[in-house]
Amino acid sequence: MINETHDPALRSWVASANAEGADFTIQNLPFATFRRRGTTDSLRGGVAIGDQIVDLAALSAAGLLQGMAATAAKAGAGSTLNPLMALGAPAWSALRLALSRALRDGAAEQSRLQACLVPQADVEYGLPAQIGDYTDFYTSVHHATNIGKLFRPDNPLLPNYKWVPIGYHGRSSSIGISGQRFRRPLGQLKAPDAEGPVLAPSKRMDIELELGIFIGTGNAQGEPITMAEAETHVFGICLLNDWSARDIQAWEYQPLGPFLSKSFATTLSPWVVTMEALAPYRVAFSRPDGDPQPLPYLDSPANRERGALDIRLQVLLQSQRMRDAGQAPQKLIETSYRHAYWTVAQMVTHHTINGCNLQPGDLFGSGTLSGPTLDQAGALIELTQGGKQPITLANGEQRTFLEDGDTVVLRGWCEKPGAAHIGFGDCVGTLLPAATA
Amino acid sequence: MINETHDPALRSWVASANAEGADFTIQNLPFATFRRRGTTDSLRGGVAIGDQIVDLAALSAAGLLQGMAATAAKAGAGSTLNPLMALGAPAWSALRLALSRALRDGAAEQSRLQACLVPQADVEYGLPAQIGDYTDFYTSVHHATNIGKLFRPDNPLLPNYKWVPIGYHGRSSSIGISGQRFRRPLGQLKAPDAEGPVLAPSKRMDIELELGIFIGTGNAQGEPITMAEAETHVFGICLLNDWSARDIQAWEYQPLGPFLSKSFATTLSPWVVTMEALAPYRVAFSRPDGDPQPLPYLDSPANRERGALDIRLQVLLQSQRMRDAGQAPQKLIETSYRHAYWTVAQMVTHHTINGCNLQPGDLFGSGTLSGPTLDQAGALIELTQGGKQPITLANGEQRTFLEDGDTVVLRGWCEKPGAAHIGFGDCVGTLLPAATA
Repeated sequence: MINETHDPALRSWVASANAEGADFTIQNLPFATFRRRGTTDSLRGGVAIGDQIVDLAALSAAGLLQGMAATAAKAGAGSTLNPLMALGAPAWSALRLALSRALRDGAAEQSRLQACLVPQADVEYGLPAQIGDYTDFYTSVHHATNIGKLFRPDNPLLPNYKWVPIGYHGRSSSIGISGQRFRRPLGQLKAPDAEGPVLAPSKRMDIELELGIFIGTGNAQGEPITMAEAETHVFGICLLNDWSARDIQAWEYQPLGPFLSKSFATTLSPWVVTMEALAPYRVAFSRPDGDPQPLPYLDSPANRERGALDIRLQVLLQSQRMRDAGQAPQKLIETSYRHAYWTVAQMVTHHTINGCNLQPGDLFGSGTLSGPTLDQAGALIELTQGGKQPITLANGEQRTFLEDGDTVVLRGWCEKPGAAHIGFGDCVGTLLPAATA
Repeated sequence: MINETHDPALRSWVASANAEGADFTIQNLPFATFRRRGTTDSLRGGVAIGDQIVDLAALSAAGLLQGMAATAAKAGAGSTLNPLMALGAPAWSALRLALSRALRDGAAEQSRLQACLVPQADVEYGLPAQIGDYTDFYTSVHHATNIGKLFRPDNPLLPNYKWVPIGYHGRSSSIGISGQRFRRPLGQLKAPDAEGPVLAPSKRMDIELELGIFIGTGNAQGEPITMAEAETHVFGICLLNDWSARDIQAWEYQPLGPFLSKSFATTLSPWVVTMEALAPYRVAFSRPDGDPQPLPYLDSPANRERGALDIRLQVLLQSQRMRDAGQAPQKLIETSYRHAYWTVAQMVTHHTINGCNLQPGDLFGSGTLSGPTLDQAGALIELTQGGKQPITLANGEQRTFLEDGDTVVLRGWCEKPGAAHIGFGDCVGTLLPAATA
């Protein structure tokens, strides 16, 4: 619901939060964990405002907040946000309201809160949570169709797609935070005409533009979460790059799904934007004419009216040559999360309908968020039509898949008339050369 | 390697450990976590001997051990075995040797160690570890062929099977310990001739007879584990029942693999038998004539000579009617792990070849361990040929898939001439009726 924290007229005494196009406006207030760079301090939770961070450990110690907001700040002061996530939506909301008021122009708390600020330029980030289980969904029908054509030309969109919010379990251990650098993976590659596979570095390294959805409160095993309750269990959303080795994937994925083609690395942006901050950017969720309606357990009036989210998304690439020449990352892809075929609430409800228990800090990936047209594709394999149509970069370099040294940046933000601009910050990762055997 | 702890002539001053057919002989010494039943004590690690448990917290406090064995006992004294698992094979081995000596007939430590014993009859068990990631493999070619015929009649064994140790990520949160009771899951079911699916309780509830393999020491991201090192990273093995809803699975599994058909519950036996305890029961690993040899990264002389393990396995069923009539569980299936197509070392090496990092306490499932003949099938769907050939139980009841109230028991043990008998204890789970909507 929209409340005073969303008022686009609000301005902060942290001047950088009021700058044109700032990600971390006072209407945003996302959460991360951080420490001062180069120290061995333990990680602690923080809230972004402009180019600063409100240190929740310092805030909690300062005793500036009362009641549920104080409880929430204390729960967010540790090295992971799991305790804050477990507290539930009323606590997250109380802390947001208290911070919104204390950070506004003219707030009486300014001088005491100022002492709790740390410049973002001075910190390094941790993962927002200890992630127990990571589930990757497949919510873009455009991605499913585009990639289906490449993996199964005769049978691109499988018959279950429009009924089942398809998902699979992902690997938690190799999830890293923005800035992650990882080696090109080795794996079994099999040429179409070869008798058997060989072990070699992947030649078809790709990205997947996704959102990461953090579960807040969980559910007991055997107790599904209904659509009416689903979003109260969601803490917030970040950006997620589900790096993929397409040649390893093509050979390994049948019959049990992707495994080593994904499990070498997954990169998250450090800031988690809460569902409350995203409230102004909700849009209606509907199905194209002729498509089946969701089964009753995946349907609700609220989901139809405002189940989707208009989160604008971009993918940028900076090659080693661009970096050496001081050239900024170049935009390759632009799309929006509004095109997804399944909503956040539907993912939560479907995941638990069999009694599976979610826990605070569990992560969902949205799946690759390709839009309806090919320039909105969320992966290189789609953008280059299976590697057959290279992209030419501004400096003349060509790309089908990623080259060693490539840095990929995901960006996301929300904006609309009558609402503030809020952004997700960058999700950055770099592909390093394969280990020499 | 075989050492003094494997000597079949060893007898313990804990008399129950010397009984004919005892699971927890002095040659076994498996690890679990437990607390006294009905208390709110924290869990602590223990080692089984006969019908008793050596309480590692009490042992550590008593100061009976020295050096690396004392370090290991202290690491095993907490509520999960992860710290002990992280210590590595020399520490596990030192603790095993010290306990083997102290538990032998005539040991000087008897009276002081006696004070650290807790009767198994008085305890309840926890999960052995906090399981970060759970990976389920598919290492029985017989299971893959049998089930492939049912899901894909034209294409039962896919071309990658004999090259790739197929695996997929499983759900950690719903793993429970022996005694687990869980509701029949709801899910989308689609009849072959229906236009769309309906939401209903699964009608094809199945078991999967598997082993659970606990990782001890992990690897750094980007640093694969070679075949030569692989087994030093493995802490030990337990029994695992990968409950499966076949009708949910058939509709949901393409293209990303099983998801809600498995994630409602997975049951482990409490005792983890160490790789060292299993050393006498190793057997040669070989491929049928005409099958491709493993790629070099999945091959080693040690793997060929003794990569496989002869672990005997049974599945038993007790219906509600049998339980009410005081009838013991009835044996349905008997097989051995020696028939697996891929070894433990191959699973570890394959999992990390792409740079994926394993962590202490990570769990692998072996996949359903069907043997070469149909009466060795590790799942009901195979045993009943897709539900078409019911099994008749001794009391006249028939089964294709599980009925509400059915309890399934997995058992496992090793024996051979010139070696002791060691057993895994029971892995027990019960299917409850679906929640009424």
